[in-house]
Amino acid sequence: MGSAAEMDRRLRPPPTKGASSVARVTDDWYIACRSEALSGKKPLACTLLGIPLVLFRDGDGRAHALLDRCPHRNVPLSLGAVRDGQLECGYHGWRFSGDGACRFVPGLCGPHEARGRRVEAFATRELDGFVWVYTEADREPVREPFRFSLLDDARYTHVPYSLDLEGTMHAAIENALDVPHTAYLHGGLFRKAGGTKNRIRVVVRRYHDRVEAQYLDEPRPPGLAAKILAPSGGTVEHYDRFILPCIAQVEYKLGDDSHLLTSAAFVPVSDFETRLYSVVSFRLPLPGWLVAPVLRPVALRILKQDAEMLREQNAMVHRFGGEQYISTEADVLGSHIMRLLRNAERGEREPSDEPWVKEGELLI
Amino acid sequence: MGSAAEMDRRLRPPPTKGASSVARVTDDWYIACRSEALSGKKPLACTLLGIPLVLFRDGDGRAHALLDRCPHRNVPLSLGAVRDGQLECGYHGWRFSGDGACRFVPGLCGPHEARGRRVEAFATRELDGFVWVYTEADREPVREPFRFSLLDDARYTHVPYSLDLEGTMHAAIENALDVPHTAYLHGGLFRKAGGTKNRIRVVVRRYHDRVEAQYLDEPRPPGLAAKILAPSGGTVEHYDRFILPCIAQVEYKLGDDSHLLTSAAFVPVSDFETRLYSVVSFRLPLPGWLVAPVLRPVALRILKQDAEMLREQNAMVHRFGGEQYISTEADVLGSHIMRLLRNAERGEREPSDEPWVKEGELLI
Amino acid sequence: MGSAAEMDRRLRPPPTKGASSVARVTDDWYIACRSEALSGKKPLACTLLGIPLVLFRDGDGRAHALLDRCPHRNVPLSLGAVRDGQLECGYHGWRFSGDGACRFVPGLCGPHEARGRRVEAFATRELDGFVWVYTEADREPVREPFRFSLLDDARYTHVPYSLDLEGTMHAAIENALDVPHTAYLHGGLFRKAGGTKNRIRVVVRRYHDRVEAQYLDEPRPPGLAAKILAPSGGTVEHYDRFILPCIAQVEYKLGDDSHLLTSAAFVPVSDFETRLYSVVSFRLPLPGWLVAPVLRPVALRILKQDAEMLREQNAMVHRFGGEQYISTEADVLGSHIMRLLRNAERGEREPSDEPWVKEGELLI
Repeated sequence: MGSAAEMDRRLRPPPTKGASSVARVTDDWYIACRSEALSGKKPLACTLLGIPLVLFRDGDGRAHALLDRCPHRNVPLSLGAVRDGQLECGYHGWRFSGDGACRFVPGLCGPHEARGRRVEAFATRELDGFVWVYTEADREPVREPFRFSLLDDARYTHVPYSLDLEGTMHAAIENALDVPHTAYLHGGLFRKAGGTKNRIRVVVRRYHDRVEAQYLDEPRPPGLAAKILAPSGGTVEHYDRFILPCIAQVEYKLGDDSHLLTSAAFVPVSDFETRLYSVVSFRLPLPGWLVAPVLRPVALRILKQDAEMLREQNAMVHRFGGEQYISTEADVLGSHIMRLLRNAERGEREPSDEPWVKEGELLI
Repeated sequence: MGSAAEMDRRLRPPPTKGASSVARVTDDWYIACRSEALSGKKPLACTLLGIPLVLFRDGDGRAHALLDRCPHRNVPLSLGAVRDGQLECGYHGWRFSGDGACRFVPGLCGPHEARGRRVEAFATRELDGFVWVYTEADREPVREPFRFSLLDDARYTHVPYSLDLEGTMHAAIENALDVPHTAYLHGGLFRKAGGTKNRIRVVVRRYHDRVEAQYLDEPRPPGLAAKILAPSGGTVEHYDRFILPCIAQVEYKLGDDSHLLTSAAFVPVSDFETRLYSVVSFRLPLPGWLVAPVLRPVALRILKQDAEMLREQNAMVHRFGGEQYISTEADVLGSHIMRLLRNAERGEREPSDEPWVKEGELLI
Repeated sequence: MGSAAEMDRRLRPPPTKGASSVARVTDDWYIACRSEALSGKKPLACTLLGIPLVLFRDGDGRAHALLDRCPHRNVPLSLGAVRDGQLECGYHGWRFSGDGACRFVPGLCGPHEARGRRVEAFATRELDGFVWVYTEADREPVREPFRFSLLDDARYTHVPYSLDLEGTMHAAIENALDVPHTAYLHGGLFRKAGGTKNRIRVVVRRYHDRVEAQYLDEPRPPGLAAKILAPSGGTVEHYDRFILPCIAQVEYKLGDDSHLLTSAAFVPVSDFETRLYSVVSFRLPLPGWLVAPVLRPVALRILKQDAEMLREQNAMVHRFGGEQYISTEADVLGSHIMRLLRNAERGEREPSDEPWVKEGELLI
């Protein structure tokens, strides 16, 4: 009979060459929650990059983020209460201010503050209706969060949504910015599989902190979503864009009348859990109140199909113990996004004015 | 306080000496599915030896088996569709022929076929109403699958059934061919515990690819099933048989009138999951249409008791991190089956005409 | 892309310094079950220190404890039956006496008893309505179990209860003997947070097998439970006590009329599962039949709050891969209990007459 080690070695398919698109860029900002989700009365638990955090507001309404673990007996601080602008643990009543310092230890006769009683604190920003957190503890941020543009432009209608996805943040972002899958996974809703194809040019421009694909001479695609977007047909100006560490943008323009910008902030909740906060901002010949109710169910169905496929991909990757991907020229942005993420993980984001540029072709 | 390593070391019972009856004979055939389960329209997922496979039929209706993972982005190909006799991935629409070659990459302007875009293919055979798969990828089979005999003999009635079991394939096969447990686990249904016992002779014959136990001078056992089998009593001719890599047979004869052969093909779905495809073929003094409805509920109840015991055994083996078995002369075939499986794992199945023979005794 | 090893490395919060309050004192006694739970007809499965045990009564009604794994094919013996005062396995019918010896192997023609067919046996005692088991196999106990006192004193009313907790035995015992958390976790029920506090003296006395905290000059605390306990107010005599390996006692006295002793035997079911068997014994100015129905719901609510907090603590400790606790003078007994447990794990319990004594202060 075999050895005991064999026992734990669940039978597996032939192992992959071993690769994973997990990326952990920690010296940057991610959305922790919507502003409205964080009341002034109760703390809120959230997870970023696998780190359990507790959010709360002080007496001035400022949001703070601490490690969600009491230094005393390690229970989640998010089970506690906000008391006089401080966070009180629900087990023994220890209290912490927004900077992580311990201010009160019930029962104790000596001094209450002590270095060992601190809890790690994370920088926060509240912008565009979101609370952002910088994911290095007790550090001054070296940059500021991404801003959702167009929110103040009265000509635009804004449709927000959020979603939880299974899979790495990279897999989710590649999916969001990928063109060819739309004809298959979303066939009929977005682009159609089969039929006559157009050979179009794609220009990729990679900067130090972002990469962009511009699709030239793209005809209005068939499908329901495209009809809403561009009722009169014509040539589409189309950009897909990734911005470090977690932003995906899809932008469509048709002349001066039609403009649609989807900005999605992805959140690496943990290595294989990704949350998505997205805002679709558009300006169309039709009034926004008319378009939004039509656009929403189509967008939700597309998102649901993507979420399901990412879930299946993630499960198969785990079953094989890693990724083993093959790419072609039709995978326009995935490898560039990975390159930017890996550089950022190593702290390499040297600014440069000149982008790296490459032109290719795609059948759409 | 203890070390962090201790943290993960869940408290365990005293460890076993470390043994496992997991066997992975890969250069052989296992049943992937019933023929009728594989339509010409949809692919079908199945798992053999832990390897996720996708089955589909080409334009001529021939069954093919590929690794169930698209080489592009690793999603299960079984989520896709059969298109023009090829398998199309549901994510980006890549298409594969039955030999695993990539035939089409949507969006791509260059050539579509490339060595790196292949998916591993497994040989298949369709026989006796089952699709068999050879579990070495991209290899010519060195032997052919087991054939269910008697299926064409009009004098026999055939009752098929299948079942999912928890536990190693060896544990399931040993259980299927074990005599003493029937008086306890199936007490009353099959053989009775206690009461007067008969001392009978057992002859074990081990060949290069099989092992057989012949029970001599065995009286008709008491119990309901035996009464159906041999209404007029008499001496039973009884064989229990294992054939590499996964077949268990139990055969009973009473003179010329009564003959019952149960052939079970076990499938090592993974190390500790075993599926069973079985056919009971019988010829009795009573007509088959009368016996089958009586036989089926008794057989199902026996199988359910065995499945439950195997599940408990498997759970306890995992709790201890391995098997620690003690055998006696009453465990007639288990160790011989293990020996054949271990030899087959190492590729050692040298044919020889002369069997290894041993005679023993058993109280039944 | 990263390495395959990275794949399994689920994203984690910054690791703790690595500590765990798991303690495995094996040369001692734990409660396996209540006497009434072990009938003379059926075996009973239970787990102590992660070891699966089967309990059964022999022909004289004596309780026995064996490892719950048949040495033959490793199925749980607790699935079997008690036959003529012996334990019979439900798979093949092997039979064992209370000392673990194999007495019968069905089907076997040779001798039935053999050294290799033994199953490990554990010493038992039946006392105060509980079955205790000594957790070293095949060993003479070096001490006797803890006795619940006062059970025979007719002046006392006794209220038993039991509960399953998630977390180490140490975490559960520290919680049971901790004073400061009562004002927060059980605020209102027991002690009140905020308000005027009394500075009281605490004397800790640590012996070779126990540690005790005596609270001096403690006023009757506010809160409902305290009102029931001491309707006329006054100064409370209060002791919190830990006795190796698993006993926690909380004792309150008010003059000659009122006395309440809670004795809890904790059971380390596994490293992070702890069961509690407790008896509250009290003598009060009010009749017991009047007090018990009021006391019980309050006690149950307190226990439920503790169980929930221990569960959250345990989950967070696992999320971080270990404990990282900071203690203050207000954590009166926790570190002493840990010290006694660690010494006992190493077999160090040298008796000494003189306790180690320390005096401190606490605000209550």
